[in-house]
Amino acid sequence: MTKNKLKNPTIIVIFGGTGDLAKRKLFPAFQNLYLDGRMSEKFQIIALGRAEKTDEDFRSYVLENLENFSRKKGKSDPETEKFLSHITYHSLDIDKEESYLSLNEKIKGFDEAFGERANRLFYLSITPSFISTISSNIKKIGLAANPKQDRIIIEKPFGYDKTSAIELNEMLSQTFKEEQIYRIDHYLGKETVQNILAFRFGNSMFEPLWSRNFIDFVQITVAEEVGVEERGGFYEGVGALKDMIQNHLLQILCMTAMEAPASLSADDIRNRKADVLKSIRRIKPEEVDHYIVRGQYDAGTIKGKAVPGYRQDKGIAPDSNTETYVAMKIYLDNWRWQGIPFYLRTGKRMEEKQSSIIIQFKPVPHSSFSYGKEGMTPNRLIINIQPAMDIKLQFMTKKPGLSLSLRPAEMIFDYFSCSTMSPEAYETLIADALLGDPTLFMRWDQVEEAWDAIDTIQQVWKTTAPVNFPNYKAGSWGPEEADELLARQGHKWIPNTQTKEELLDDTDI
Amino acid sequence: MTKNKLKNPTIIVIFGGTGDLAKRKLFPAFQNLYLDGRMSEKFQIIALGRAEKTDEDFRSYVLENLENFSRKKGKSDPETEKFLSHITYHSLDIDKEESYLSLNEKIKGFDEAFGERANRLFYLSITPSFISTISSNIKKIGLAANPKQDRIIIEKPFGYDKTSAIELNEMLSQTFKEEQIYRIDHYLGKETVQNILAFRFGNSMFEPLWSRNFIDFVQITVAEEVGVEERGGFYEGVGALKDMIQNHLLQILCMTAMEAPASLSADDIRNRKADVLKSIRRIKPEEVDHYIVRGQYDAGTIKGKAVPGYRQDKGIAPDSNTETYVAMKIYLDNWRWQGIPFYLRTGKRMEEKQSSIIIQFKPVPHSSFSYGKEGMTPNRLIINIQPAMDIKLQFMTKKPGLSLSLRPAEMIFDYFSCSTMSPEAYETLIADALLGDPTLFMRWDQVEEAWDAIDTIQQVWKTTAPVNFPNYKAGSWGPEEADELLARQGHKWIPNTQTKEELLDDTDI
Repeated sequence: MTKNKLKNPTIIVIFGGTGDLAKRKLFPAFQNLYLDGRMSEKFQIIALGRAEKTDEDFRSYVLENLENFSRKKGKSDPETEKFLSHITYHSLDIDKEESYLSLNEKIKGFDEAFGERANRLFYLSITPSFISTISSNIKKIGLAANPKQDRIIIEKPFGYDKTSAIELNEMLSQTFKEEQIYRIDHYLGKETVQNILAFRFGNSMFEPLWSRNFIDFVQITVAEEVGVEERGGFYEGVGALKDMIQNHLLQILCMTAMEAPASLSADDIRNRKADVLKSIRRIKPEEVDHYIVRGQYDAGTIKGKAVPGYRQDKGIAPDSNTETYVAMKIYLDNWRWQGIPFYLRTGKRMEEKQSSIIIQFKPVPHSSFSYGKEGMTPNRLIINIQPAMDIKLQFMTKKPGLSLSLRPAEMIFDYFSCSTMSPEAYETLIADALLGDPTLFMRWDQVEEAWDAIDTIQQVWKTTAPVNFPNYKAGSWGPEEADELLARQGHKWIPNTQTKEELLDDTDI
Repeated sequence: MTKNKLKNPTIIVIFGGTGDLAKRKLFPAFQNLYLDGRMSEKFQIIALGRAEKTDEDFRSYVLENLENFSRKKGKSDPETEKFLSHITYHSLDIDKEESYLSLNEKIKGFDEAFGERANRLFYLSITPSFISTISSNIKKIGLAANPKQDRIIIEKPFGYDKTSAIELNEMLSQTFKEEQIYRIDHYLGKETVQNILAFRFGNSMFEPLWSRNFIDFVQITVAEEVGVEERGGFYEGVGALKDMIQNHLLQILCMTAMEAPASLSADDIRNRKADVLKSIRRIKPEEVDHYIVRGQYDAGTIKGKAVPGYRQDKGIAPDSNTETYVAMKIYLDNWRWQGIPFYLRTGKRMEEKQSSIIIQFKPVPHSSFSYGKEGMTPNRLIINIQPAMDIKLQFMTKKPGLSLSLRPAEMIFDYFSCSTMSPEAYETLIADALLGDPTLFMRWDQVEEAWDAIDTIQQVWKTTAPVNFPNYKAGSWGPEEADELLARQGHKWIPNTQTKEELLDDTDI
């Protein structure tokens, strides 16, 4: 979010430096920031892992992965070679204090080489169960003793329910102050998600329409084509509600529904987001089935390829009750949105990968126009987050020809086509964390409110097993109950295929 | 506007059948309507002209011109051959009663051949000075005696000021009832002009913004690249105010500013348009210079080609004071638009041919975003009528990159790209007149109010000659005073070039 260039020397310590996230996202992000001149002149990345490795071996491992995962590749690029020279590998046994002591020596060595005490960024790219041990060791040795200079990035999940999140936070608070803790939700780093704020508050013409007065309902979709892949064991204990709704979807909801912030400062923005989470209507246990639908995929076909059901996936119990799909209706009890349903849905093994927000406006109050068999389509604003990165406005227009009948049409702004090289979400977020700008990170109250918002659902689901799992076919858009959820309100999930189709010429001459 | 197909036998009588309009617009329109199955099974076109011609000669003259001016051409098309067989030539001396008597015989002959009394459409494509003679002869012989079946189409100009228009109308009223008189303004037949109504009232999301609360100002431009060409003699006595503002621009103003009609019936729509004309603030003689700028082109260059000044054009007096350019500020004294300026401008020999409406919305009430040197552009809705036929929405979006700064972007809906073959304005209008749908024609009260709205300007200009003619270069956007007219309000004419430019990639990574 910030424009400033990083000046302070910086040491980045990656816990889980040999892990999947580091390989796919973190090193590519650091490399791109480096190539774009966004790293400070003096910086060092210390990658931690259990095994013993030489710096040389580790650097060639990183280079190989940049080739696969970085948007700027890297092979035979002298600048990338220079970047690699800033990476050190350090073997660490998470449970052993000596490991941290030697890490401390290494860090101090770099401080000395830099000629000053560098900023420190600890990136915890590890299983949540290790956070406690790492945190207490950092405290014991005083690795992050300077709240103005030292920060920690925590990956999701931040706890697994409200109680555990509070515990985790209290534990972290013993080592870090709130302003040192950067809870990442990589969705917030996406260009198209950040653009929601720009679109809403950088323009005067949308905000007057942005309320219960003119909007009929809002639909937020985060659909994945993939199943659980290699993460079956992890996913079994999580499910879509915790994995997606509690963070990504509720954050997108915040961006969509928040009031205008007084300024773009981190706290002004996060205050307004927290307001949205607070205003989410808390439901009673007996209302859970009325507001929320859970699903689990059965075998099916995605883009012509047969795929197994969730219960047949690797590492999944054959009678698993973990939900791979959630659809829910949310009401916000505030002045702006009272009575307007926000429909959220997320699922694995959906027909198509797609993250999008659809604002459906109310129908015209009165119309004498004639129209085709498609009917009179309400106005819609479609914000595609990924893979398409565009904004579409659907409206009615005169059908060319001698009569005054209408047909649907759309205007498109393609965010992606205007920029060949958008930064990846992790670049944006890491750059912000390095600079100490927490705007795009989750403040504790946001995390807590988000857990609170789904708390009743978690409680109820814990005690009542789903009766009809698996209840949707891989390659579909989820269980039938999700359609019924909207049908009760007279609404439908708006199809929003990202495959481009040509507009038909239906001139009525 | 109407969907019905014409069933009654119809006889079309074109006064001025050998003239320029008939050649370029009318015969091509009839041909296209015929090819599209929009003419009734039994119809006859009687083209009137002074000279003696055989039907055969006249038909080959028409065919030749279809080749040049019809969007469907015609040569060696058997259907067009059939169409031509419906055309008869009749020599008529406008002043001689015998001519009308023989025309009457011819018409009756066709009635007999059709087996019933056909509808009659008299198209007056002649100099206004002939209208009176023709009208009284039509009356004397009873050519248009059936108000339910017989109609007359009158081309603009309908009078040359309020008084003369009233006289003309009273004269016509002796022969025709108001519902028989179809006063044509071909701008109203344009697809993109008709679409304004569809766009405004077929969608729910624009109307709430469509008022003084959210709109800063409206700019309506009808610019021509051409000069007076061969029409110098005619234009000298007319000028841009009467030739363009009184009809085309005020009609576009009506479409843009009107309230929602109760229905799409001709009178409901025309009532709401007349309301707009009535609400135009009438100005005092001493205010004319404050609200209106007139101009006349000097020699200059258009698209690299040197062109002479107006006073050097053929048929123009070397000290002519006829205006070839008008810019004016209009206020509508009603609830919706109080205080919002509508800037109208029209001119010949402008930089680029262009008819467009630009709605500029008010600036954002508060913004903390940073933005590039272009500044924070207000939202704009641009409706291009011709030659581009598109609707653009200009808004601010996040500049791709690590910081949250904004840049202007636009969404486009290209009306033309969705329809390879839109009907020409004259096709739409003639089809409506044949069917008796007057929606897109000017009712008498509209014409009278439009003349009334510019009456004071005409009075003042009659007595005070412009002091600085010629005051703009051919190929420019008009005199400097037109910029000052807006500058007093802190506004500027919005450039809206129709030449497509690629958006620059200004990613700030």
